[in-house]
Amino acid sequence: MFVILVYDAGAKRVQKFHKICRKYLNWVQLSVFEGELTEVQLERLLAELREVMNSEEDSVIVYGFRTRRYFVRRVIGRKKDDPDRRFW
Amino acid sequence: MFVILVYDAGAKRVQKFHKICRKYLNWVQLSVFEGELTEVQLERLLAELREVMNSEEDSVIVYGFRTRRYFVRRVIGRKKDDPDRRFW
Repeated sequence: MFVILVYDAGAKRVQKFHKICRKYLNWVQLSVFEGELTEVQLERLLAELREVMNSEEDSVIVYGFRTRRYFVRRVIGRKKDDPDRRFW
Repeated sequence: MFVILVYDAGAKRVQKFHKICRKYLNWVQLSVFEGELTEVQLERLLAELREVMNSEEDSVIVYGFRTRRYFVRRVIGRKKDDPDRRFW
């Protein structure tokens, strides 16, 4: 399943979110990750995020797609982010 | 076409990005919008963004899906954002 994950986390937790997501997905923008995951991997990722998140303040949205056949991806402006550019 | 749009814009431009995107799509998270658009509407949205963006600094990624049949959307943590909560 192709997954797009976006999060909005409190400043104190954003680094933890980033590290967890990077274990499973490709970092494509500030708090946006994408990549192929199995259902089991997705559940593991979400379980790890639940452990560090404050569910009153933080928000995670996951979009999952069984096929990429009907899928278009376009980037305008700055391409891939420089992974070393600090965001926190 | 169902569209997910994410952007990473410089602090001086983020309010303009937000206002433009809100004309076309639903705001679901910090710099994440989603909704149904025709191809013409999507091109118009991207043209407006190009006018205000600094393509060296800012980045917009658009995911487009012809069908939502193979589509799963999950939210964990804080649900829909409070539209009046200031982000800039």
